[in-house]
Amino acid sequence: MPKNVGCLSVLNDLYTLILGDDLRERSRLVNSNEKVEINHGPTLVIHGGAGTIVRENYSVQKEYLDALKESLMAGHRILLSGGNSIDAVEAAVRIMEDCPLFNAGKGSVFTIGGKNELESSIMIGTSNHPAGASTLLHTVKNPITLAKTLLLDPENPHVFLGGIVAEEYAEKKGLEIVDPSYFWTKKRWKQHLEGLEKDNNNYLEMDSSPYPMGTVGAVAVDKNGIIATATSTGGMNNKKDGRIGDTPLIACGTWADNETCGVSGTGNGEFFIRYGIAQDVSSRMRYLGESVDEAAYNVIKNLGKVGGGGGVIALDKYGKVAMPFNTSGMYRGYIRVSDGIPNVYI
Amino acid sequence: MPKNVGCLSVLNDLYTLILGDDLRERSRLVNSNEKVEINHGPTLVIHGGAGTIVRENYSVQKEYLDALKESLMAGHRILLSGGNSIDAVEAAVRIMEDCPLFNAGKGSVFTIGGKNELESSIMIGTSNHPAGASTLLHTVKNPITLAKTLLLDPENPHVFLGGIVAEEYAEKKGLEIVDPSYFWTKKRWKQHLEGLEKDNNNYLEMDSSPYPMGTVGAVAVDKNGIIATATSTGGMNNKKDGRIGDTPLIACGTWADNETCGVSGTGNGEFFIRYGIAQDVSSRMRYLGESVDEAAYNVIKNLGKVGGGGGVIALDKYGKVAMPFNTSGMYRGYIRVSDGIPNVYI
Repeated sequence: MPKNVGCLSVLNDLYTLILGDDLRERSRLVNSNEKVEINHGPTLVIHGGAGTIVRENYSVQKEYLDALKESLMAGHRILLSGGNSIDAVEAAVRIMEDCPLFNAGKGSVFTIGGKNELESSIMIGTSNHPAGASTLLHTVKNPITLAKTLLLDPENPHVFLGGIVAEEYAEKKGLEIVDPSYFWTKKRWKQHLEGLEKDNNNYLEMDSSPYPMGTVGAVAVDKNGIIATATSTGGMNNKKDGRIGDTPLIACGTWADNETCGVSGTGNGEFFIRYGIAQDVSSRMRYLGESVDEAAYNVIKNLGKVGGGGGVIALDKYGKVAMPFNTSGMYRGYIRVSDGIPNVYI
Repeated sequence: MPKNVGCLSVLNDLYTLILGDDLRERSRLVNSNEKVEINHGPTLVIHGGAGTIVRENYSVQKEYLDALKESLMAGHRILLSGGNSIDAVEAAVRIMEDCPLFNAGKGSVFTIGGKNELESSIMIGTSNHPAGASTLLHTVKNPITLAKTLLLDPENPHVFLGGIVAEEYAEKKGLEIVDPSYFWTKKRWKQHLEGLEKDNNNYLEMDSSPYPMGTVGAVAVDKNGIIATATSTGGMNNKKDGRIGDTPLIACGTWADNETCGVSGTGNGEFFIRYGIAQDVSSRMRYLGESVDEAAYNVIKNLGKVGGGGGVIALDKYGKVAMPFNTSGMYRGYIRVSDGIPNVYI
């Protein structure tokens, strides 16, 4: 396939494959390759993890869709009232962190050592590229708020804090601290025990996991055209203790640049690190002149070629949304201030 | 200046500015914008940190140059005997880690809490992009060897480990473990105490620091055209405990891609994170068709425009070297198997 072929047909093929025909028309509307940029205005796009969505789980799909809508509405209310994109993505991600369905915050998976180790990052697309990130957290209820606090704190010179110092910082800043047992859920503990019974290396294979991979994320553009991206995760089921994934890594799991797009990733984190996935979407827009959907689609296509499973949500300053993935499903959705309708998909 | 202007004249202006006239001719040779790629064969390029090189320090410059030569020769011997690039960059970086002059390993700076917290990363440019990284280390004598071990270990599914678990892994793998006091040096302790007397935020300003910024690094291409990159650091003087810098972050401080280049960065790490500096050099080559010196120069120029101080070393598969920086100095050098002459600069 020629590199720069107009991607409408390609995208439709992809979306037919991954969304099913019933959602094809909608995806065509969302992802059409407009010749003239339409400014959709303030927009929020979210994901709740990509991975294998197995038949057994369909009964709980409504719960996921409702939770995605709640997340969208939380961010939407901020954008609707003229608020800024960083507050919107934080609000949207906090809803998913507090919901036990998603692998972030309350619903985080366990490490191989039986702990919950959370991480997060946040970034604003203004030219100074402000960012905040945290990792190796056991007691911070909402890691995304820690990332935002690090970003906004004028006395903090660093982007990225990890471990006990990050937790102490969170407590000092008045963030909600919980006992590590807060993150224990029956569902994740069962996954942990099941993982222990298998070959330790297999749990990183997307296709061998019956569970959606970790990570939740949000990208928003506000009335001022400022893009913000937030990503939060419990990591991968039975990851080694001390493992740092792509979620807190700027350029890998999270990116924001008003001139190109905001990107939040979900999937096999090691691949997202080794291919600098989030920044690559932005670089294709900046240097190749691709649209946000072309760039996001090409990056996820290339990710699949090298064996990496996952997806991204991406959003440009015009509110154009892309949500490609190469797994069998990705919890995701978007909402625009222009119509206030939460659109959610699996 | 037009975006794609041939960068020979620009580079010469830059190198005259930063190297002085005596080195202009050599830099012209190294960085000339060849129309036809010359294959220089196996090549190793290293850096020992960028930053303010003050007049008072000139007396010790010979020590630095000798140490850089020793580092180059360690990697060179491996490339000369037909060894591979990952072994060459590890060997070169280990020399600098063991030398108290450089801010990595033995010569690491202190955190604001008076500890040494080391970090490292390594990457190979083959299409599967293998990578290993570590952070928040207090007892691993050679962090670069930990990164390499993580990369090569078939039983390790992760790229990036941090903290006590990374240290336990290192010990289990037979790496040399030292008491944290091993990293104490009089020079760095003095810098720590001097930093405490100043405004806590000022130490991150490149221009206010009388010391070269942290980080050592190496990029090599071997006889098979495989590029490897290694970066190791003690971080920034009086960084917060728990701060993770750009050095262990793939895409920010380290990158390797045989199709484009290997990159190792040094400077104000927060800027390298927020602008995904290492990967950006590669993306400019891949997507804009820039040469390695054009790409590296443009990235460092843009870094300076947004207020970031630092430099990169970069190397393509033809052995073409780029070493731009926007600070008053950067310890650096390169050597080629073709002539075996260690070229070192400050």
